[in-house]
Amino acid sequence: MNSGKTPIRNPLAVAVSLGLLVSLPLAAQAQDSVEERLAALEEKLAEVEPQATGAEGFSFNTYARSGLLLNGDLQSAPGSPYLTPAGSVGGAVGRLGNEPDTYLEAILNYKQEAENGTKSHYRLMIADSTTSSNDWTAGDGALNVRQAYVEFSDLAGFSGIFRDSAIWAGKRFDRDNFDIHWLDSDFIFLAGLGAGVYDVKFAESVKSNFSLYGRSFIDFPSDPQTASETSSTDSLILTANNYFGNVQWMLNGINAQDNETRVVGGVQEAADTGFHTMLAYHAGDFFGLSDGNFKVAVMHGQGLGAEAKNIGADGDLHEDAVSTRLGIYGTTYLGENWRIAPAILAETSEDRYIKGDEYQWLTFNTRLAHEIGSNFEMQYEASWQTMDITPLGYAGRNSVDGDYSRFTVAPTFKPQVGGFWNRPEIRVFASYSTWDDELDGYATGDALGEADTDFTSGQWTFGTQMEIWF
Amino acid sequence: MNSGKTPIRNPLAVAVSLGLLVSLPLAAQAQDSVEERLAALEEKLAEVEPQATGAEGFSFNTYARSGLLLNGDLQSAPGSPYLTPAGSVGGAVGRLGNEPDTYLEAILNYKQEAENGTKSHYRLMIADSTTSSNDWTAGDGALNVRQAYVEFSDLAGFSGIFRDSAIWAGKRFDRDNFDIHWLDSDFIFLAGLGAGVYDVKFAESVKSNFSLYGRSFIDFPSDPQTASETSSTDSLILTANNYFGNVQWMLNGINAQDNETRVVGGVQEAADTGFHTMLAYHAGDFFGLSDGNFKVAVMHGQGLGAEAKNIGADGDLHEDAVSTRLGIYGTTYLGENWRIAPAILAETSEDRYIKGDEYQWLTFNTRLAHEIGSNFEMQYEASWQTMDITPLGYAGRNSVDGDYSRFTVAPTFKPQVGGFWNRPEIRVFASYSTWDDELDGYATGDALGEADTDFTSGQWTFGTQMEIWF
Amino acid sequence: MNSGKTPIRNPLAVAVSLGLLVSLPLAAQAQDSVEERLAALEEKLAEVEPQATGAEGFSFNTYARSGLLLNGDLQSAPGSPYLTPAGSVGGAVGRLGNEPDTYLEAILNYKQEAENGTKSHYRLMIADSTTSSNDWTAGDGALNVRQAYVEFSDLAGFSGIFRDSAIWAGKRFDRDNFDIHWLDSDFIFLAGLGAGVYDVKFAESVKSNFSLYGRSFIDFPSDPQTASETSSTDSLILTANNYFGNVQWMLNGINAQDNETRVVGGVQEAADTGFHTMLAYHAGDFFGLSDGNFKVAVMHGQGLGAEAKNIGADGDLHEDAVSTRLGIYGTTYLGENWRIAPAILAETSEDRYIKGDEYQWLTFNTRLAHEIGSNFEMQYEASWQTMDITPLGYAGRNSVDGDYSRFTVAPTFKPQVGGFWNRPEIRVFASYSTWDDELDGYATGDALGEADTDFTSGQWTFGTQMEIWF
Repeated sequence: MNSGKTPIRNPLAVAVSLGLLVSLPLAAQAQDSVEERLAALEEKLAEVEPQATGAEGFSFNTYARSGLLLNGDLQSAPGSPYLTPAGSVGGAVGRLGNEPDTYLEAILNYKQEAENGTKSHYRLMIADSTTSSNDWTAGDGALNVRQAYVEFSDLAGFSGIFRDSAIWAGKRFDRDNFDIHWLDSDFIFLAGLGAGVYDVKFAESVKSNFSLYGRSFIDFPSDPQTASETSSTDSLILTANNYFGNVQWMLNGINAQDNETRVVGGVQEAADTGFHTMLAYHAGDFFGLSDGNFKVAVMHGQGLGAEAKNIGADGDLHEDAVSTRLGIYGTTYLGENWRIAPAILAETSEDRYIKGDEYQWLTFNTRLAHEIGSNFEMQYEASWQTMDITPLGYAGRNSVDGDYSRFTVAPTFKPQVGGFWNRPEIRVFASYSTWDDELDGYATGDALGEADTDFTSGQWTFGTQMEIWF
Repeated sequence: MNSGKTPIRNPLAVAVSLGLLVSLPLAAQAQDSVEERLAALEEKLAEVEPQATGAEGFSFNTYARSGLLLNGDLQSAPGSPYLTPAGSVGGAVGRLGNEPDTYLEAILNYKQEAENGTKSHYRLMIADSTTSSNDWTAGDGALNVRQAYVEFSDLAGFSGIFRDSAIWAGKRFDRDNFDIHWLDSDFIFLAGLGAGVYDVKFAESVKSNFSLYGRSFIDFPSDPQTASETSSTDSLILTANNYFGNVQWMLNGINAQDNETRVVGGVQEAADTGFHTMLAYHAGDFFGLSDGNFKVAVMHGQGLGAEAKNIGADGDLHEDAVSTRLGIYGTTYLGENWRIAPAILAETSEDRYIKGDEYQWLTFNTRLAHEIGSNFEMQYEASWQTMDITPLGYAGRNSVDGDYSRFTVAPTFKPQVGGFWNRPEIRVFASYSTWDDELDGYATGDALGEADTDFTSGQWTFGTQMEIWF
Repeated sequence: MNSGKTPIRNPLAVAVSLGLLVSLPLAAQAQDSVEERLAALEEKLAEVEPQATGAEGFSFNTYARSGLLLNGDLQSAPGSPYLTPAGSVGGAVGRLGNEPDTYLEAILNYKQEAENGTKSHYRLMIADSTTSSNDWTAGDGALNVRQAYVEFSDLAGFSGIFRDSAIWAGKRFDRDNFDIHWLDSDFIFLAGLGAGVYDVKFAESVKSNFSLYGRSFIDFPSDPQTASETSSTDSLILTANNYFGNVQWMLNGINAQDNETRVVGGVQEAADTGFHTMLAYHAGDFFGLSDGNFKVAVMHGQGLGAEAKNIGADGDLHEDAVSTRLGIYGTTYLGENWRIAPAILAETSEDRYIKGDEYQWLTFNTRLAHEIGSNFEMQYEASWQTMDITPLGYAGRNSVDGDYSRFTVAPTFKPQVGGFWNRPEIRVFASYSTWDDELDGYATGDALGEADTDFTSGQWTFGTQMEIWF
């Protein structure tokens, strides 16, 4: 009787114990190896990801522009933000539809992290600049190395005020250079060979950079091919960059041994030392009026510091040279689809190269963009520059007093419309520029002075261009 | 008695409910987190993969060749597919065992995809060409930037006939240039600075490209170092490329302002405009005879269009210049292990540079390969060129009428034998070339004209070379 | 009664069978798809990983140094490991704090693996060298292509003694060149264009390399800009490199057709052939005394082989020229934190350029490093060189007999201290060098001969530098 029941219970017991003995251990075991394989995948992917994304190992950055700039005769038109007399001393006008060159920077990075957590970043920048329209520019091109440096950060052995500091050595553009993009002009362009430390943190919102740069004097970059006459280290620049919240105070001391022996305008009065300072404010809104940003800076320099932007780059400066430059720009939206970016750059300079000379110029520029489609916007740029320059014969230049105006319309395609900094862009453009005849007399061979009947006192130019950075 | 049974049932109940309460929830829970981790891995890998494979971000492409070309005295031998008199006007002969140079293109790409799906592709090509055998060629090399452009595709805002279109701007080689590899000659080489649109689709099998190119005139590329005399934009080329299935019809209009003022051969009769057209057929079989491919094209040009390959690159062309060029090549297998690629390139040109001059040449070339092992094949190339050139003193050249023949044997190693386009290859080679003495008199200083007693009317050359592209 | 029990058993049976029917199949099914997704992830990651890590596809390598070298007047100081009279024939002194240049090599690799398993490696090396301190060196720089070659390995079709062999062709530095880093001097620098095979394995510890190199003669690399006068292939080098365990025996035969017609010192006695051999020992300990390594090599050459390092690179060598060079260096730790690397390089050479001339020099150099923190160490380098050179007027040089000494202290930062080969490094340094006045008279315009009152017979120099390789 009991036995009659067992057969009923036993199957259950068997089935259940089967369930417990077989299925559950199996499941557990399977989950084990899944666990192992998941862990292995996650570990390997964690190694691969930074390599693939460039967080470690190799990565590539670029700035590049290239296009056609034509005059009404369908021939190359001279152009450049620095094409006016004021441009010869840094007075840029708007760049939109004003660039005849192919200029590019190919930046090869290699990032490593040591076992102790210290990070290193090697940066190589190869650049080229040419106005050639040839498909082979071995004779016209200017490929050269502009940067080659290493920077260490997160240093395991650093503490205290240096805990968040980075150190660097080699050849570089200073990390904290910043610009007015629409004028293709930096507020400050500090570059050369040397070493330094960034982000020495004295307090939560107080930090400083200290660097020593050595560099050669350059001609003005209007001719990249011949921009480097002397190649030895002519000037040494000791720089301190101090940040108090949004306020930046920069100090530069410049020394150029024996430069007082240089003959400029027939006399030996060139500066062998210089001082330069900048007070800047970096804001996260558009002059407190709306969203956006703005930057304003006043630069003042004496002697070799009187080249207000390219620190320590001009060896012809007079020992009494004094320059004061003002730079302002901002960006904001005017409603849904309209962006505006006004900018002002102005300078007054005395005893610059020849005792008694005077350089005064002011540029007002505005870039306006109307966002129309997901890939299309209309861009407009207006520039007005006034200048009063009395060079007293420096570099064979004549006194000029007059104005230059330029207006450009540029239908623009881009992968995604929106914001001021989205690139790449593909543009076609038309520009009209006009200026006082007097400006043609400043220097022979400069853009305005060219003996081209189509290029005096006013002209239309046309063209197409791409611009990209990443 | 009942109670006597319960102890038997209870353990089961416990065990089972244990199984249900413990094991199943656990399994469910485990599968849950496994699900999450798998999803996370799949998502992250989907981000990483395009970066790693170059589908997005940085990628690298190359064409390069380098090797030794020696004569019987174990000294450098002159060579080039363009070494004959006909070569001075584009008449190439076979390249196998005929290249003394190190030529390379380093192509750096950066691809991005915007949120709206629009894709952008930046391409930078740095190239070098030298015949130097030095390990330091700062004085001989020719590093320069040949391309720097952006191209947008899959534009979110484009529709209708432009839905599949791509637009570009900058400096580039036209996307649709194509060549006869074995002669190192393009059918069309269109390059310069400008902008355009590709793949405007009028119907399923009807699409067109439209571009504007501006370029400088070049010397013939025989001397890469000095290949760019004038660097301004000399000629503008408006091009339309139309595809009807396998048929391609290209139209080029060329304008070079003021070029009529150029003095050639003592007179001012240079063309300032030109017209060029090409009718081509691209086939997916070997002349209908077997598997493989073939391409045939007829090019016709007048005035500045009379340079049939390098569109708009030759400024010396006479206003009455007329050229007609034929190009054909095909590739197929002859049985298992034998590949053959015959090619014909021929041109007739009149009033080319001097009113009344005549240029006629025809090249027949065949590349044969015998696939022997997994890494080894024997390659053979035979070239025969006949020419009848009456330059009427242009560039100090003399009339010639004669033939040039060349035969090369090249044992070749490659990672994987098979097909015409597998690279890299490592070759050793021996060539015998012979030609009519008369050809030596065409021009002083050209390859055949060289006052080298070992290099008149016939010679053996030897060497080794690598070639790669990816 | 029985029926009274069933209701108790049935729920169990149901519950259990529920457990068996529902939970287990579910688990099984879930594990199935997990299995599939894991397999897919593992497969895809296996494809992605080599691309991301550079094992396949693109990878980037570099050697670079850049910094400032200043004298007591804070002006550029001349410098170079090759700045002494002995340096003109390869006699280097220590490099620490002795390098005024920016020199860099950007190496772009592309690796592929064919279906049959054969691997190919394309290598492009672009290099630059300049002493310019300008941020734009288009006029001073020397960007050029030093290597462009392909190498195949793991060839599917190779077997027997070639099973582990690699073959190459193109332009390259020989794979097996090796150097004394602290003197910036190779034991052997073999470079040029050609082809060859590596690792022909005759026995477990016996293998050989065979290559043919063609190259141009160079000036001594002291002036990279003009380092390539002649660009044709002047000399052919047949090289065999044989390894017997730690012993390396290299043999080089050199031929330079027609070089006997070269006029050196007014006579035609230049060599047109040459022979060079090296016997080297590569050890895995520090002269058997401690952990570390050492290398010792004796090089002997005659005729064109009398340039003991740069094989086949010097065309001025006399037909009777004989040179013997010794090179030794080792590295080891002196206790916990002190590293030492002593080196000796010495040569005796007769009838080198002019029958009867004599060149004898010996350099002793030691690099010492004291590891202090995780990112910081003190480096010290001492060099002493003695030379007795009787050039008999070759290249306008005068006889000199004297010594040169140099000592450098260099506080050094690096991401992770430890070992001799860890880079990058950021250094500041001070050097004192002194030498016999007589050495100033060797050649006009060389570093010691410079008419700079601050630079005769002894000087302090200062500076900063980065050095990196990866």
